[in-house]
Amino acid sequence: MAGSTFGERLKMTTFGESHGEAVGVIVEGVTPGVELDEAYIQVQMDRRRPGQSSVTTPRKEYDKIRIVSGTFEGRTTGTPLCILLNNTDMRPSAYDDIKTLYRPGHADFTYEKKYGIRDYRGSGRASGRETAGRVAAGAVARRLLENRSVSVVAYTTEIDGIKCDTFDEAAIESNAVRACDPAAAERMIERIEQLAKDGDSCGGIVECRIRGVAPGLGEPVFDKLDAELAKAMLSIGAIKGIEFGAGFAAAAMRGSQHNDAMDASGFKTNNAGGIIGGISNGADIVFRVAVKPTSSISSVQQTVDGEGNERSIQTIGRHDPCICPRVVPVIEAMACMVIEDYYKRQAALLD
Amino acid sequence: MAGSTFGERLKMTTFGESHGEAVGVIVEGVTPGVELDEAYIQVQMDRRRPGQSSVTTPRKEYDKIRIVSGTFEGRTTGTPLCILLNNTDMRPSAYDDIKTLYRPGHADFTYEKKYGIRDYRGSGRASGRETAGRVAAGAVARRLLENRSVSVVAYTTEIDGIKCDTFDEAAIESNAVRACDPAAAERMIERIEQLAKDGDSCGGIVECRIRGVAPGLGEPVFDKLDAELAKAMLSIGAIKGIEFGAGFAAAAMRGSQHNDAMDASGFKTNNAGGIIGGISNGADIVFRVAVKPTSSISSVQQTVDGEGNERSIQTIGRHDPCICPRVVPVIEAMACMVIEDYYKRQAALLD
Amino acid sequence: MAGSTFGERLKMTTFGESHGEAVGVIVEGVTPGVELDEAYIQVQMDRRRPGQSSVTTPRKEYDKIRIVSGTFEGRTTGTPLCILLNNTDMRPSAYDDIKTLYRPGHADFTYEKKYGIRDYRGSGRASGRETAGRVAAGAVARRLLENRSVSVVAYTTEIDGIKCDTFDEAAIESNAVRACDPAAAERMIERIEQLAKDGDSCGGIVECRIRGVAPGLGEPVFDKLDAELAKAMLSIGAIKGIEFGAGFAAAAMRGSQHNDAMDASGFKTNNAGGIIGGISNGADIVFRVAVKPTSSISSVQQTVDGEGNERSIQTIGRHDPCICPRVVPVIEAMACMVIEDYYKRQAALLD
Amino acid sequence: MAGSTFGERLKMTTFGESHGEAVGVIVEGVTPGVELDEAYIQVQMDRRRPGQSSVTTPRKEYDKIRIVSGTFEGRTTGTPLCILLNNTDMRPSAYDDIKTLYRPGHADFTYEKKYGIRDYRGSGRASGRETAGRVAAGAVARRLLENRSVSVVAYTTEIDGIKCDTFDEAAIESNAVRACDPAAAERMIERIEQLAKDGDSCGGIVECRIRGVAPGLGEPVFDKLDAELAKAMLSIGAIKGIEFGAGFAAAAMRGSQHNDAMDASGFKTNNAGGIIGGISNGADIVFRVAVKPTSSISSVQQTVDGEGNERSIQTIGRHDPCICPRVVPVIEAMACMVIEDYYKRQAALLD
Repeated sequence: MAGSTFGERLKMTTFGESHGEAVGVIVEGVTPGVELDEAYIQVQMDRRRPGQSSVTTPRKEYDKIRIVSGTFEGRTTGTPLCILLNNTDMRPSAYDDIKTLYRPGHADFTYEKKYGIRDYRGSGRASGRETAGRVAAGAVARRLLENRSVSVVAYTTEIDGIKCDTFDEAAIESNAVRACDPAAAERMIERIEQLAKDGDSCGGIVECRIRGVAPGLGEPVFDKLDAELAKAMLSIGAIKGIEFGAGFAAAAMRGSQHNDAMDASGFKTNNAGGIIGGISNGADIVFRVAVKPTSSISSVQQTVDGEGNERSIQTIGRHDPCICPRVVPVIEAMACMVIEDYYKRQAALLD
Repeated sequence: MAGSTFGERLKMTTFGESHGEAVGVIVEGVTPGVELDEAYIQVQMDRRRPGQSSVTTPRKEYDKIRIVSGTFEGRTTGTPLCILLNNTDMRPSAYDDIKTLYRPGHADFTYEKKYGIRDYRGSGRASGRETAGRVAAGAVARRLLENRSVSVVAYTTEIDGIKCDTFDEAAIESNAVRACDPAAAERMIERIEQLAKDGDSCGGIVECRIRGVAPGLGEPVFDKLDAELAKAMLSIGAIKGIEFGAGFAAAAMRGSQHNDAMDASGFKTNNAGGIIGGISNGADIVFRVAVKPTSSISSVQQTVDGEGNERSIQTIGRHDPCICPRVVPVIEAMACMVIEDYYKRQAALLD
Repeated sequence: MAGSTFGERLKMTTFGESHGEAVGVIVEGVTPGVELDEAYIQVQMDRRRPGQSSVTTPRKEYDKIRIVSGTFEGRTTGTPLCILLNNTDMRPSAYDDIKTLYRPGHADFTYEKKYGIRDYRGSGRASGRETAGRVAAGAVARRLLENRSVSVVAYTTEIDGIKCDTFDEAAIESNAVRACDPAAAERMIERIEQLAKDGDSCGGIVECRIRGVAPGLGEPVFDKLDAELAKAMLSIGAIKGIEFGAGFAAAAMRGSQHNDAMDASGFKTNNAGGIIGGISNGADIVFRVAVKPTSSISSVQQTVDGEGNERSIQTIGRHDPCICPRVVPVIEAMACMVIEDYYKRQAALLD
Repeated sequence: MAGSTFGERLKMTTFGESHGEAVGVIVEGVTPGVELDEAYIQVQMDRRRPGQSSVTTPRKEYDKIRIVSGTFEGRTTGTPLCILLNNTDMRPSAYDDIKTLYRPGHADFTYEKKYGIRDYRGSGRASGRETAGRVAAGAVARRLLENRSVSVVAYTTEIDGIKCDTFDEAAIESNAVRACDPAAAERMIERIEQLAKDGDSCGGIVECRIRGVAPGLGEPVFDKLDAELAKAMLSIGAIKGIEFGAGFAAAAMRGSQHNDAMDASGFKTNNAGGIIGGISNGADIVFRVAVKPTSSISSVQQTVDGEGNERSIQTIGRHDPCICPRVVPVIEAMACMVIEDYYKRQAALLD
């Protein structure tokens, strides 16, 4: 792998920069003969795209996808799917002022150190727009998982310290922050709107729940199911941590509390988060990720330029003051890719 | 990959069960011509082995390693290193009583679901003994990192709710729990000894600090440096979560707080944990992992047998009431493997 | 890998069917900061495209490429290059007559058996048009190899039994069959034109010579340099065999003849074809491939349909009666990809 | 991959040098629950081992294998199999005289150029002894293929210009050169014995036939079934070429001759060698490889030493004057690994 490819038997390769002609994804290993069309994928794209609500960036990247290869007469052929999205709302000149400055919290500095060259237009390859390809691929994986009766849902549980107290699944897609508690969602939205006015941003926590996974999925040792999910999630730019089941709270638990006892009807608790020894146990797979506050803020910050001179910087632009609602479909997409890939790996092992 | 291999340009494959003839590891991609002998590796093995202190299992697996291939006249040849450890303290019959029961918190149930067959002798492949191979490989990576002036150190920061208040690096290897605060270490040891008497176990938190990594290391998008470290850590059986830099605390921070500003001398804070956009920024790489309480406890627990009958189980054996001190060298080993591998990937990119 | 990806540190993924919207390639791992533009790549595309001469298909796929990502201000950025080619001369309806028949020599039957579904429009993914992406990627690799003073040249040495007697490198690109002997080329062209009239096709042999490769390139054991080149070449649809150096003739040689002796100025012969033990020895790397006669011929052939009924088939279309001249740039492209990838692997090992 | 690993879903990693403590192999991805014991594997090891007959080296490496992990109570567990062979007939001092010389035809020079260090004891990692691990892994694959009714057989068809005229499958394992024509075998043996006396060696051709493979196996584009088999075969030290079906003869055939027509009972010819478009078509898979004459000969040859001084060298040792009979089981082993791996890949695709 050279960095832009993910998965083994179901595999995606994303490409494109935020300000080039297009971004997209190649998906390999797709089960042939499955009904799939652009509309099905577009539903997920629309959940990720900017400009959905008052709390997301007003940029108008209408993420209209095209399937360029890999389907025929409305079905997958088993050959690589290429899904393309043209970039339509490009304003590279907007970045002229900052092209020699390292924006705090952004990858400007590290990309320049890695590559010795910097595409300063809107973060280049490090742009969140890269995740559009992931969401498209994830929709393909989700289509395959439907045939296995596996479902994947993610939702905000905390923003800027405001926590959800209830779990109302039906409410998730009805509020702008995709929170599982509609009352908390209102307070979250208010807070975000205030922060936007203040030129600041905030972080949060997103939980993901995967239902219907058969017990026995996951590879031993290095390719544990939770290890792969952790990699998948940490590969999303804004994510700074992950925990499964009881997670960090397990650090303060006793074995007698944490061990999930079994009775005839299955596991009595789910401190393990549905994965033991790296292999699914049939319970819901549950994990939470820490989402950092958006790096782009419009207040003045201290930084340096390429020559090391101290400078101040103010990122005027169109940004999400909190990325949680838009990272939800990306988290789901990555989870779908991992689970479907592991089903295929297991089929290979047992065949 | 089929589960037992890790890494790309520096790669390890572990093998062996806890109660077979031997366990070991193959390490591929090792820089040729580097001085390396068994004694260098043995130092790390001895940090992982059981029976080091009052708080670790009294099992006597003296983990004496042998380099079977890949060195010549005291130097690496560039060909695969095979490192073997014979199993010497095997008592498979000790497991006869539980061979039809699923031990709570253990991978017995999930392995049986995955493979349809169960090697019930001491967890088989899911045994912590598998990590001996990782530590051996990690020692090889550490040897290569010395030539890059990179150092990796991990240490316990919390056990059963007892937290370290100071960071005394010199004290880490001098106390039985490898805590960075010797006063806290005393209380931790006392607690663990009490829990052992009570037939229970506890978890904790281990932090890892990697110093000297040049800025620019890490692959964009899916193979971000933090994503790979997350996978590496979650592939260790007892680890249930990971966070980088400010980690989960970032969820309650503002962008204006979390962004690491720069001045002429570098980053003024390290909320990012040394990695931005998946690429090292030259600051220390810092992450913490959640260690669950040891699953094997001697108090009575509820479970089922292979036919689903409800049963009670009591795991009499020789187990660590807290795995933190022994997981420290495993965490370091995995971190060494990742960092050295990424140096090699970067060399390939720039060549 | 799931079939459409090739390489490790320099990697390509091709996508697209002959009769979809576009075909293309993603190239990962490209050295950053290298000058590269569309014109450089287009030169190679034009060598592969149909309609170059009287002996190639008159189809007018003018293979105009676009670099969609991975360059900035005329230089590579180190992020994935996406190169797209729109399909412009599609006539899927031309295949209506044969959509239930298996064309002899074509992959119709095997694709249907593999996928259970068949995209009958012009061979779908099995179309030679897929190689356009390879040639584009190979041009990128060639650009990187220029900086290493490595050159790759392939040329026809035999067509339909007519063999080249001389090696005139300057003549290769001046004749329509890309033969290294201009006199033989004339006879070859005449023969092909006659076969086209007769509704038949012919095969040939192409040799490839790689100059300037430093000694020491290649991985031991499974990833031998010749093994990887063999895979690269056999992955081209029309290739049915490969031999290195003395090749099949070695089967009738003695050790005393075949061993390449050395004197102070280097190897005195090159029976090994520049590779010993899977590693380059500094001599020219030389291999030959067997090119089968084009499967599409306009004479009547016997076949069956999807129900197993015996049928006769006549492939009316626009096809190359001999693919040798157009496979030459594909062979070079694959060789460029392998050699550049192995340079990068070696850099990783030694770093 | 870093060179010593082969396969994707069924994967092997070999390790060990000819004069170290042991050689061996790790096999990952083995179907669980399959009966397998050491005796089954030993049968194949004994076909590869030296000292079987008058035409093989008299070295006494009795290749007794041990399964160190991955089986339990006579069945595979699905976890990595480690198979070890101790080295018992080591005479490293026998190589003292030549440790500064590059043996013609051997990898001494290229390994030194690659690694900058040379393990001169019996070729180190480049030794043919490395193939013992392959044969062990191949036996595991063969066991799995039995359950699919796939069989793999290889045999000598030509040695030093002496060709087989008949195909008598029952005779193959009854003659010392594993030729398919017992009369030709006698002449071959005579020739080899004479060459051994003369201090010379010879090459030959080995054919491999794989029966029972279902149509539809193979990945499109780069991972074509023939491409992977080609890589597998060229990864064997002595192999310098490969051809499928009509192979190089196809270069002089017309499309009307080479295309395999179909009737109601299947393909009427097998010029394709059982693979079209990289995918099996249900006919026998047939390929031939060119085996070079053994590099080690006892006559005087010209070479240089590490300083470039011209020297003469005489390789006194115990070597095979023709490696064909002992390479037969290695070819079969590699073929078994590829076919079983591709079955597993196909299962993953369709699942």
